[in-house]
Amino acid sequence: MSEPRPVQLCVMLQCFKRLQQQPACRRTLSALGSLYGARKPYNTVIDVTWGDIHRAGVKPLSFVRQVLAACLDPTLVNSDKLPADARQRAQRLLGGCVGGSVGSYTATAGISEIVHRISEFITRRDGGVPSHPENIYISPGSQWALTNILKILVNSKSSPQTAVLTPLPCHSTTSLSITSLGAVAIPYNLSEEQGWALQMEELHRALEFAKGVYNPVALYVINPGNPSGHVQSRKSMQDVIRFVSEKRLFLLADEVYQDFVYGEHEFVSYKRVLAEMGPPFADTVELASFHSVSKGFTGEGGLRCGYVELVNVDPAVMKYIYKMFSMDTCAPVLGQLALDLMLNPPQPGDPSYPLYNVETRNIKTAVANNVKRASEVVNGLPGFCCQPVQGGAFAFPRLYLPPKAIQKAKEMGMQPDTFYCLRLLEETGVFASPGCEYGLKEGTYHVRFCILTPEDTMEELLGRLTSFHTQFMKDFS
Amino acid sequence: MSEPRPVQLCVMLQCFKRLQQQPACRRTLSALGSLYGARKPYNTVIDVTWGDIHRAGVKPLSFVRQVLAACLDPTLVNSDKLPADARQRAQRLLGGCVGGSVGSYTATAGISEIVHRISEFITRRDGGVPSHPENIYISPGSQWALTNILKILVNSKSSPQTAVLTPLPCHSTTSLSITSLGAVAIPYNLSEEQGWALQMEELHRALEFAKGVYNPVALYVINPGNPSGHVQSRKSMQDVIRFVSEKRLFLLADEVYQDFVYGEHEFVSYKRVLAEMGPPFADTVELASFHSVSKGFTGEGGLRCGYVELVNVDPAVMKYIYKMFSMDTCAPVLGQLALDLMLNPPQPGDPSYPLYNVETRNIKTAVANNVKRASEVVNGLPGFCCQPVQGGAFAFPRLYLPPKAIQKAKEMGMQPDTFYCLRLLEETGVFASPGCEYGLKEGTYHVRFCILTPEDTMEELLGRLTSFHTQFMKDFS
Repeated sequence: MSEPRPVQLCVMLQCFKRLQQQPACRRTLSALGSLYGARKPYNTVIDVTWGDIHRAGVKPLSFVRQVLAACLDPTLVNSDKLPADARQRAQRLLGGCVGGSVGSYTATAGISEIVHRISEFITRRDGGVPSHPENIYISPGSQWALTNILKILVNSKSSPQTAVLTPLPCHSTTSLSITSLGAVAIPYNLSEEQGWALQMEELHRALEFAKGVYNPVALYVINPGNPSGHVQSRKSMQDVIRFVSEKRLFLLADEVYQDFVYGEHEFVSYKRVLAEMGPPFADTVELASFHSVSKGFTGEGGLRCGYVELVNVDPAVMKYIYKMFSMDTCAPVLGQLALDLMLNPPQPGDPSYPLYNVETRNIKTAVANNVKRASEVVNGLPGFCCQPVQGGAFAFPRLYLPPKAIQKAKEMGMQPDTFYCLRLLEETGVFASPGCEYGLKEGTYHVRFCILTPEDTMEELLGRLTSFHTQFMKDFS
Repeated sequence: MSEPRPVQLCVMLQCFKRLQQQPACRRTLSALGSLYGARKPYNTVIDVTWGDIHRAGVKPLSFVRQVLAACLDPTLVNSDKLPADARQRAQRLLGGCVGGSVGSYTATAGISEIVHRISEFITRRDGGVPSHPENIYISPGSQWALTNILKILVNSKSSPQTAVLTPLPCHSTTSLSITSLGAVAIPYNLSEEQGWALQMEELHRALEFAKGVYNPVALYVINPGNPSGHVQSRKSMQDVIRFVSEKRLFLLADEVYQDFVYGEHEFVSYKRVLAEMGPPFADTVELASFHSVSKGFTGEGGLRCGYVELVNVDPAVMKYIYKMFSMDTCAPVLGQLALDLMLNPPQPGDPSYPLYNVETRNIKTAVANNVKRASEVVNGLPGFCCQPVQGGAFAFPRLYLPPKAIQKAKEMGMQPDTFYCLRLLEETGVFASPGCEYGLKEGTYHVRFCILTPEDTMEELLGRLTSFHTQFMKDFS
């Protein structure tokens, strides 16, 4: 068996660095440190802790990369190395860059032509519901935009403290953004038994709970869900809109996984549902919808770019938002261009279309198969139960651990699912995230892993997981 | 005379949008709005409000762009279109990217290999003073890193309010970062008469002033200066270090213009001076030094990347800093790669060296000539007085306006130097920034313009400025 290659060691080192931030993990990590010198029973680390398709081994889309390369090195615009439409597109995009260079800063909200094309994309996506460029801000990632909008909503000095309702489970960056601004995240439980669906009574309960102690100003939803994998129905979204309207909450809709919905499920944007509901909702409910170049088929997380569209926000507040966004000058220019390419891909008849079509279809097929296989395999293992993955980047099965494993984890001073994930990493090189990272209540254990991988990677992962899990359950039975 | 091209109109529109944020400018802008339809007495806008060399018309460095293009489109690594060293460099850089893709997220502090090479660069630059990779964070721009470090220093809820000493004049983004965090910027005046040099008695005065009312925690310096163009002497830096040591202030050293020093002036880093001073300073003074891929010869502001090196910061605080930086995942990957290329350019003997050498020498020669010419021309105009531009990206001459011009500006509800700059833009297409944007005291007027332009652009600018200024002084005499 070959030694791990440097790139894998590097991934491993990063895993360790991240885990080291969690005090409970440090003790085990010191034991795991011996891995560096030792021969391991695997020759690759499969890192499925991120919703990052290139990290997971999916190849970038050729069209996106060709256009961006030509924008960086404009001599390529005149070369025959690239398809004609890629070269034309590069030329057009450079025309929107000040000084014709991707090295120049852009306007605060992003390159004007691209902001306009984003609004055209939104209008198309939402079946004609109008979108206005002046309500759109391109940002260095959707999370960054969310934090900026939160800054507007949160008064760190207010008493009672500002609160934002957030789902449970929830990926940690959002809660961290909220608390770092001096506000508090008030969780509403998603119902695992109903495929992690949002429950209106939970929203009411959370709000009632918050109202006595805090000042709730906003509701954060993520659809398709992370880590839940749930896709909201139109009916559920209408209920949410009525709720925020009645309770006068700002609606923060994280819709970065909109390209990834599976089976018969369909993504519908909050903006569209809001518009379809008509007045008084359509013209009063304040909404911010987030999207990103990182999370679709493009998967260009490293380019750091996303956008937010604001709906029904007071013009005075919009001016303040402009100020907030202008503090960091602008989003990375190549990310802005990638956003344009993501939302306006090659069309049938274009020279780049056939390859683009094959590449994206391959990703779709692989992911659909991964969803099916992950569900089959994981649900076939004793002590595992995975809700249907309807959308998004992750499977999030529940883990029913034997009491001895829970006891052992407690002795080691860590959460049982962290203990499970560390052992999984140590023994198989599969790096998945423990459910406790997503704020779930004591006594329920989960594992999150990215399903946006090539099919052979998923098979390898499921094979390693199966062997490990079978032995783990035996060891602690 | 030809009509402005679309790209120029776009620049103009951005100028207007920025100016519209300043309430005082809105009235005049409505009058200027007529420019859009009207024929103008110039056919290009020269936007010298930014320290952005590509915007100002300087071409990107070929080596940087070739390597980045090959990283985006790795088929270029095997093509004969690019020099061998550019292709090798791309291959090496891709080896540091997870999944071999610039589309994957990186570690929080940046790609490990690049962080190491930054520390090697710093050690070389500082004559062997050691630099440790674990003290370096790559960030989406130096301003972003500064804001993150400020977040550590500022307690928004503290009473008395946290204060940071900042120079006057100072570019506005720093003051904005400080105040947006709930702290207050306490200005210390730079001495215009002495070429904008930092005066120790001013630091003492500002600190004494702050102490009664606020809790001063840090001193911010920018060297070479913006907008001042001053380059600090070793002696001045030693005095500053003794001051922050005695007063227990954190030293924030913005050194983004370190590549641009002119004449006999020399850039020395605060880190180096600190190390040379030996104990107790060298091992106690807390320092953060900022650098950026935007401000050197590379000039890739659109890629949004910089770094901060921390010195003598408590390990517990360093852990918190890691947390702050990890909230936004990582800096844009192509920016990180550009940082590596900026700090480790081609060397004599490399195939790309001759072209790289010509391109950077041309920029240096042009800028040296611009500095000389701008000073000659501006100082030759009545009512203008420009301190020597020793370093940085800007000339910042003082403007002695006739009382009638001041009166007219006041009638229009704006600062006199804003009035001057708007007229300059309207009548000549030269877009420069008024001194009032940098916080200077009532009654002194200035104009800031970028000197990092091609020589012919600077000549054109100076020509237009001369005609305009002569007529302006006549009109208001």
